[in-house]
Amino acid sequence: MDEDKLLALAKRRGFFYPAFEIYGGVAGLYEYGPMGAALKANIADRWRRFYVLGEGFAEIDSPNVSPEEVFAASGHVKEFTDFSVECTKCREAFRADHLVKDIENPAALGADGLSAALKGQGAKCPSCGGELSVPQKVNLMFKTQIGPTANSRVGYLRPETAQAMFFSFVNHYRHFREQLPFGVVQVGRGFRNEISPRQGLLRQREFNMMEAEVFVHPERKTWPRFHEVADDRLRLVSNDGKEHVIAAKDAVHKGIIKNEALAYFVALTQRFLLDVGIDPKRLRFRQHLTNEMAHYASDCWDAEVELSYGWVEAVGVADRGSYDLDQHIRHSGAQLTAFERFAEANEVERDVIAPVHARLGPLFKGKAKAIAAAMESAEGLAVESDGTIKLAIDGAEVTVPPECFERKRVREKVSGRRFVPHVIEPSYGLDRILYSVMEHSYHEEEKEEYTVMRLPISVAPIKFGVFPLMAKDGLDGFAMKLDAELRDAGVVTSYDDSGSIGRRYARMDEVGTPFCVTVDHETLEKGTVTIRDRDSKAQVRVPAKELAALAPRLLRHGFSVAKGGK
Amino acid sequence: MDEDKLLALAKRRGFFYPAFEIYGGVAGLYEYGPMGAALKANIADRWRRFYVLGEGFAEIDSPNVSPEEVFAASGHVKEFTDFSVECTKCREAFRADHLVKDIENPAALGADGLSAALKGQGAKCPSCGGELSVPQKVNLMFKTQIGPTANSRVGYLRPETAQAMFFSFVNHYRHFREQLPFGVVQVGRGFRNEISPRQGLLRQREFNMMEAEVFVHPERKTWPRFHEVADDRLRLVSNDGKEHVIAAKDAVHKGIIKNEALAYFVALTQRFLLDVGIDPKRLRFRQHLTNEMAHYASDCWDAEVELSYGWVEAVGVADRGSYDLDQHIRHSGAQLTAFERFAEANEVERDVIAPVHARLGPLFKGKAKAIAAAMESAEGLAVESDGTIKLAIDGAEVTVPPECFERKRVREKVSGRRFVPHVIEPSYGLDRILYSVMEHSYHEEEKEEYTVMRLPISVAPIKFGVFPLMAKDGLDGFAMKLDAELRDAGVVTSYDDSGSIGRRYARMDEVGTPFCVTVDHETLEKGTVTIRDRDSKAQVRVPAKELAALAPRLLRHGFSVAKGGK
Repeated sequence: MDEDKLLALAKRRGFFYPAFEIYGGVAGLYEYGPMGAALKANIADRWRRFYVLGEGFAEIDSPNVSPEEVFAASGHVKEFTDFSVECTKCREAFRADHLVKDIENPAALGADGLSAALKGQGAKCPSCGGELSVPQKVNLMFKTQIGPTANSRVGYLRPETAQAMFFSFVNHYRHFREQLPFGVVQVGRGFRNEISPRQGLLRQREFNMMEAEVFVHPERKTWPRFHEVADDRLRLVSNDGKEHVIAAKDAVHKGIIKNEALAYFVALTQRFLLDVGIDPKRLRFRQHLTNEMAHYASDCWDAEVELSYGWVEAVGVADRGSYDLDQHIRHSGAQLTAFERFAEANEVERDVIAPVHARLGPLFKGKAKAIAAAMESAEGLAVESDGTIKLAIDGAEVTVPPECFERKRVREKVSGRRFVPHVIEPSYGLDRILYSVMEHSYHEEEKEEYTVMRLPISVAPIKFGVFPLMAKDGLDGFAMKLDAELRDAGVVTSYDDSGSIGRRYARMDEVGTPFCVTVDHETLEKGTVTIRDRDSKAQVRVPAKELAALAPRLLRHGFSVAKGGK
Repeated sequence: MDEDKLLALAKRRGFFYPAFEIYGGVAGLYEYGPMGAALKANIADRWRRFYVLGEGFAEIDSPNVSPEEVFAASGHVKEFTDFSVECTKCREAFRADHLVKDIENPAALGADGLSAALKGQGAKCPSCGGELSVPQKVNLMFKTQIGPTANSRVGYLRPETAQAMFFSFVNHYRHFREQLPFGVVQVGRGFRNEISPRQGLLRQREFNMMEAEVFVHPERKTWPRFHEVADDRLRLVSNDGKEHVIAAKDAVHKGIIKNEALAYFVALTQRFLLDVGIDPKRLRFRQHLTNEMAHYASDCWDAEVELSYGWVEAVGVADRGSYDLDQHIRHSGAQLTAFERFAEANEVERDVIAPVHARLGPLFKGKAKAIAAAMESAEGLAVESDGTIKLAIDGAEVTVPPECFERKRVREKVSGRRFVPHVIEPSYGLDRILYSVMEHSYHEEEKEEYTVMRLPISVAPIKFGVFPLMAKDGLDGFAMKLDAELRDAGVVTSYDDSGSIGRRYARMDEVGTPFCVTVDHETLEKGTVTIRDRDSKAQVRVPAKELAALAPRLLRHGFSVAKGGK
């Protein structure tokens, strides 16, 4: 399809358009107009149906502005980078790997590899033909300072919503009464300060994510409801280049997908994407290549959607192991662990480092209590070569001198053990899904100028168009009342009395409104209105006073309900 | 009430807690846990019921990261400031006006006034008693750079959601088919880099707002549906210090509230706040003092809620005149205006500045067309003293020399005029409302340790607790099935089979769950379950198989529906 037509429609009808246009726009920043904001909210609602109501996961909401410590721990300060090259003539900046030709996965190249590749192909500035600088590594987080005075802290806008699920693990674990598995989700913004954003909604500097972090036992990566999706057929492209169309259960048995929990969320992702309007023929799951996968991930599958831009990643489903929790444990000293009770308690001997309170108190004053507690709860605490021990207290490192502790061997009953859970992460790009749904729903009819957006009813921004045949004879008053009744029942409508009925239908078809209700003279005589179906263009008459009650059934089951009622 | 108890509950039960606690926390940043995120989403949904479904306003969604030009125009770069003083000894920073005693509205003081007041009262550092620096003006926007390379642009995190309703006015006006009045709303984040945030959720550095910008004709500040709220009684504290308890219509007639449109949104604000659980006895509307009101606002009323912290502003309803659109017109050159057709066309003579295309083209090349268009559409364009004219093109100023234009007197038919609409702005602090709802819903019963959160059903995070009397004899399986049925119908539930029934009721009461359903042995025999009401503690038995159908009615009309059914 011609994506320019879709972009023109998106702007004209208020789906989305470049933000800040009156100031010349800013690359990579878009605004959702009324139709787009509603479509986006509806897709997110459907996602919550699957993840919150369906799986019983907990949704949280954490700040976008975050202190540096979080991303030092997560690895983003060091690793969330791209290589940029700048034109020495026009100063425009480009992503170095985007200029490399004929190399598979150039994003995996380092500075030297990129430099050699660009030199080898004689790359010039794509805008003006000028010479390019050598590749420079740049961090892609938006940086800011927390606190407006000199007395401030470095902060970043989060590049993903996931970290709060990790650093607040203790709270989430308590919420689920300390039982694995459980999931915590977040729907919110992520930020990535792209060097040179292109491809519209697909590569924004500020975007919307729906992420779930599912905490599982490291040795039991099964899923209680796997049987429900076991027979779902998946189109899988494994990283040996082979394509399989295979039931989820067989993908696990054959070891194509590494474990059942991961396969469950791959299958759930497919169910969700089809539910919101992705064309099944333009959907596949591609396994990450070895040099593409984060070093800690043991397996990762991207849901890819075929668009006019090519195959585009819309969702990533990864087994992240214990990497994230481990990192935060190491950086904060917090005990982000789960507990499992042994079948029966063991008696064991172990070496402990015990606080000497009489020395700790005078030396550390107000902090002594926290230090003693940290010493007692820390596992595998090691004495440094200089005889001290180091502890993390409230995010800061504290060095404790030898006279403040003693090493002891103790015998104790051990009723269970603490361990670091593993994480399965389904991470959804909401803007990309929205754009994909729009491309896959876009239909041109006979005459090329007539466009119908065949959105699933559940995600359509407007559910009912409500029209008086003419804005006179009391038809308009009747239609307005009907419109108010529907809205009072929580149904989003659009009242329209301007132009011909055909033109009004066309306006609604273009934004994907599934049903249009028209009030005509027969309404005043017999009390019936017509309901017209977007896709079949069929019409039926129903009693106007039954409409508000009929609406939820129409929205749930489609036009056939009304036909049946006729 | 004791707010520490509420804060402890908020943390323990996952409403909200300081964010980034494992790294020592960051003042002014909070995280919503599962209960808080749900409560917040439910309050926002109710707001949309009033503003989007009720008023038919359009909801948009614009980026948090914004280029500097937006806030240069809005005035925030210059005016969004506080004065800070720093302790010369411990380096802690404070808001200067917060340290001033015995002066009404110290926020209105300038640097000299603050300096004198602090000196006069001999103010010292509240933390360590050290000497304070002189007051320094600091800007409260979070600053960042857009683009990670040297080739970047200054950006800020938006301090309010409102600006997108102004700078994208042309899109919104088109969406409403160029008819006033209309409203555009946004629910999203705002950021304010506070010097020294305190008071928990009430003064955060990142917060949630629900804002409506209502565009009206400057000479017709009426509201079509005012009659619906005309008799609503409002508690108004006008800026002469008088308190009135008065019907909305009388407040307008007596000139207490300046116009009908403003009064409508004051009344709508009251309806909304009562709907989500604000205690009517602890709600009032206070008119801004003259030295407190923004210089462009002609009238402004704050909805204030009485909390343990005192009276706190939760909503501001202001008549902002044409200030915001004017500013963006001046800074961008965009025509952010509405059009009104005259009853009949006039013939007029006027002086125009007409482009000389033959000169413009060679001089301005690709930009010539835009310059010619801007010249033709600009109104009141003035020739500078040096004979040139200045135009804003894509946010940049362009100087056009005299040979490129000519002054002409033309006769033309004028069928109408363009004008800059005025704006009524109801701006809601979502976090403050959430906190207020929690304080006003908080009830301790007989024994002090028993807490019930009497949240309105519509905003309660969980709607049904579902319990088997015991987790055996098949009661648990039955209850789980019931739970799944409710969730499938879109109802948020919490299944719980641990501990005594009393303890499970207590857990649900503490988070405000309105209904608890218990499956017991009679369920297996007769097919009925008990429904227990949170506030009255009354119980009725209903057939289990009717529960999913009964649930929406219970949620809409309350427990009496179930009692009636018995």
